[in-house]
Amino acid sequence: MPEVTIKDIARICGVGVSTVSRAINNHPDIRPETRQQIQRVIEQYGYIPNNSARNLKRTESNGVAVLVRGITNPLFNSIIKVLDIELKKHRMTMILQQVDYEEDEVAVALELTKEKRLKGIIFLGFNYYHPEGELDKIKVPFVLGTVGAICGDENCTLYSHVAVDDLQESYRMTNYLIRKGHRDIAILSAEEKDSSVGKLRLAGYLKALEDNGISPNTHLIIPFSDIGEPYSMTNGYAATQKLLKSGQAFSAVYATSDMMAVGAYRAIREAGLKIPEDISVAGFDGVEIGDYLQPKLTTMLQPVEEIGETIFRQLYDLMNGDCGNKNLLFQGELLEKESVRELVHI
Amino acid sequence: MPEVTIKDIARICGVGVSTVSRAINNHPDIRPETRQQIQRVIEQYGYIPNNSARNLKRTESNGVAVLVRGITNPLFNSIIKVLDIELKKHRMTMILQQVDYEEDEVAVALELTKEKRLKGIIFLGFNYYHPEGELDKIKVPFVLGTVGAICGDENCTLYSHVAVDDLQESYRMTNYLIRKGHRDIAILSAEEKDSSVGKLRLAGYLKALEDNGISPNTHLIIPFSDIGEPYSMTNGYAATQKLLKSGQAFSAVYATSDMMAVGAYRAIREAGLKIPEDISVAGFDGVEIGDYLQPKLTTMLQPVEEIGETIFRQLYDLMNGDCGNKNLLFQGELLEKESVRELVHI
Repeated sequence: MPEVTIKDIARICGVGVSTVSRAINNHPDIRPETRQQIQRVIEQYGYIPNNSARNLKRTESNGVAVLVRGITNPLFNSIIKVLDIELKKHRMTMILQQVDYEEDEVAVALELTKEKRLKGIIFLGFNYYHPEGELDKIKVPFVLGTVGAICGDENCTLYSHVAVDDLQESYRMTNYLIRKGHRDIAILSAEEKDSSVGKLRLAGYLKALEDNGISPNTHLIIPFSDIGEPYSMTNGYAATQKLLKSGQAFSAVYATSDMMAVGAYRAIREAGLKIPEDISVAGFDGVEIGDYLQPKLTTMLQPVEEIGETIFRQLYDLMNGDCGNKNLLFQGELLEKESVRELVHI
Repeated sequence: MPEVTIKDIARICGVGVSTVSRAINNHPDIRPETRQQIQRVIEQYGYIPNNSARNLKRTESNGVAVLVRGITNPLFNSIIKVLDIELKKHRMTMILQQVDYEEDEVAVALELTKEKRLKGIIFLGFNYYHPEGELDKIKVPFVLGTVGAICGDENCTLYSHVAVDDLQESYRMTNYLIRKGHRDIAILSAEEKDSSVGKLRLAGYLKALEDNGISPNTHLIIPFSDIGEPYSMTNGYAATQKLLKSGQAFSAVYATSDMMAVGAYRAIREAGLKIPEDISVAGFDGVEIGDYLQPKLTTMLQPVEEIGETIFRQLYDLMNGDCGNKNLLFQGELLEKESVRELVHI
């Protein structure tokens, strides 16, 4: 059976093609009875407005790719949820791509733009270092979500970044631990040569130590384990086990993601130690699980709703040529729960 | 600047279009020097083989929609990860769509097929009840993942299902609790009128009670709370709080998802009770978090790798017309951890 076209519908209804189009698009400029008649005919003949200009346009260019490094990370889940709502609202389709930790997300993005007519790209969990000029090869608007510009100030507008202010908020968390009397603070984080936000969180930690006159003990800087994905429970568990076996003295563990803190809790518990009596633990992210831990996790809440909405808004503005690149950084909120105790120095 | 075409590349290289095509497709039937020359020219002129037949075909029809009800569910995360790997392997693109709990996923699917040329659809966390014939309106191959056919046997081949055998494995878990001496077993699950897998898990629970001569106590059947999404921590927390306040006697809580069990742990702990000394807890799914709880969660492990791969394989076979619909059910694995204690009846 040949496919029913918009012309057929117009002919059957005895109206013009533009009237059918108005009915399909819920245009106000059409009489309700006419719209109803057209809709009945559309349903009766099973006409799918697939080849109309409206849909052709949409089919070709309403896709927004979301490239996620770490799809099991609940932080990204929450942001994806917000993005999904925003994209749907604007009749765009999310094309989700999982990027492996070893994979080059820019290469994935370039491959995608070759094959798909994308309206835009959103990166979540981006790695900073790519050969110079590599990002500039991406010819559609894109936003780097959850990672701020590496230089860390508002003038970094080479690309569009939307993220929590990782350096500043990591500084604040470390400073909080110091104010609670902790000086030997272990950090589960990236190495300095890391190319994720871990680098910024580590820098914030080091700066807070420095500003408080504490020399960093490199043995308390525990880089991501090679077990499990960075920022995961498994990784935090392995890193904390390593820390506990090192024989180094420490009174607090600052895990640079809540999921790593979940792993740290387990390792500390299995070593026969109590949180916060023996060891204090702080996290970063503010994902739901923190409140389900015993004791509840003190952490830095990322404003995921705001971040998700801003990522979309920035991409949307770029698509419409309404703005240049921006480095949009948000404050977190330090949630004081039960996992950090005050150390009294006698 | 007019776009460079494959014809331009052929002309510049002094070869035929088919030779350029062979070079692009890494066809063995081309001399390496020729391939290298062509690749140099392609790079030099920035030719993107976007309009070649190969890519046109790919652009139009390599999309597979994955419709997920409950994107924050770590079980689905793991399956999405497997699907992503399989789809990439076969040069298909995942179009992920989040479906809200109130939303009709079939309507979402139909909307998608209107707008996109999809090769297939995968549903995760499907709800059973849709008006008769509604699913038949979907004109591309589709697989209902993580939900078995409601009639529960292999002859249910109206649609393609790939799932753990929810009824059987829920029966097995309940039976395990009974063998451990528990008779007053509360279940956090769906109501009988539920239209998700919760219905099957509840049926397995009821059947196990019946086969062991235990009359079900309807006060111990705690339906999903209206707080938070079904199967979530928040929901399990609220449901368990309700159960604890009910004054009913029970020695075990069977949470029909591990995330609900995480919530149950918190509610039990906050009531000043101990797991498993005061109350035993069992879960379902076998997601990673179970091993990070204190005590470790006894649960039913779903074979997510196998389920993910089978969902893809079934869809792929349907796409290629190689098979009819199937109801593919998998066994789970009962993981005996630390959250269930043996009750000794004196």
